[in-house]
Amino acid sequence: MKAMEERILNEGSILPGGVLKVGSFLNQQIDSKLLKEIGEEVARLFEGEEINKVFTIESSGIAIGTAIAMELGVPMVFAKKHKTSNVDGYVYSTVVHSFTHGIDYDVFVSCDYLCEGEKVLIVDDFLANGNAILGLIDLIEQAEAETVGVVACIEKGFQGGGDEIRNKGIRLESLAIVSDMSDGEIKFRKQ
Amino acid sequence: MKAMEERILNEGSILPGGVLKVGSFLNQQIDSKLLKEIGEEVARLFEGEEINKVFTIESSGIAIGTAIAMELGVPMVFAKKHKTSNVDGYVYSTVVHSFTHGIDYDVFVSCDYLCEGEKVLIVDDFLANGNAILGLIDLIEQAEAETVGVVACIEKGFQGGGDEIRNKGIRLESLAIVSDMSDGEIKFRKQ
Repeated sequence: MKAMEERILNEGSILPGGVLKVGSFLNQQIDSKLLKEIGEEVARLFEGEEINKVFTIESSGIAIGTAIAMELGVPMVFAKKHKTSNVDGYVYSTVVHSFTHGIDYDVFVSCDYLCEGEKVLIVDDFLANGNAILGLIDLIEQAEAETVGVVACIEKGFQGGGDEIRNKGIRLESLAIVSDMSDGEIKFRKQ
Repeated sequence: MKAMEERILNEGSILPGGVLKVGSFLNQQIDSKLLKEIGEEVARLFEGEEINKVFTIESSGIAIGTAIAMELGVPMVFAKKHKTSNVDGYVYSTVVHSFTHGIDYDVFVSCDYLCEGEKVLIVDDFLANGNAILGLIDLIEQAEAETVGVVACIEKGFQGGGDEIRNKGIRLESLAIVSDMSDGEIKFRKQ
């Protein structure tokens, strides 16, 4: 998606530890016009596919999941990282290791909101090592629902998570794939 | 907003500790058609007002903030509760006490995303004691920006936060105000 690559080049910055900061348009501050374009692009990519639900993870996936769900006209569900008092009853849960933050965390979703046989589209802002998305796939499998595909706004192609998901035979659509940023310049994989 | 009251009556449930659970359409699972209606209603309510930015707090405000920002065609910014490695540089911060979870937590936003003179609309899913929203107002004041108004999807009118905000002279639009749920039945304040 050309607009995504351009925004990354114009506004992205590389922080210590290999963090690609896109806080001005995709993370903490979110460009609602870009979100609309992302929704339309994903609807175009998955045209003809049955999708019953968009599934993402708090917090940074929620805005993107919302925009895509609104475009597709289906509900959006997000997995939580912390159990709070307004989630009661049974949950599906899994453990995700974050390389960025160097910790393991629990991820869970109420059993009421992922159902057997549902066709689920996973979306997230970043795909690096892929652990968060593999965790969401695990939750979908626990619910005996089906992963229709995965959408990542930005894939860090050099970290291998995207290729691991493709190798599982799961359809992955990354709106931009960063192939290298080791020398301070952001390069994209041609798609 | 009639649609909001109806959904609360049909799908909301009261959990121990006075928690109103609306996870099936507003919290963990989010009805994207209702979000669209919320966006349109807020655009109607604030028609003619200059709004440069929608401001909310992770996680449960993000979907609603996204929908409203998309309808208004302005960026959405969310305050964070935990400092992560992809937020660098200077931040505005404040402390919020959560009665629901019984803890104090830090809330912050990058100084890059709230700017002097900006006209900011605060939105959140719930308004109970009002501490989260008072924290967002504090961050806006630190940035020398201006709070145009506050939108709460559900105000718990019996907990006083909404009236405290109104008494400060800040415009508050609550899409539904629960006046009482002490006997297990949800009643609304007439608006």
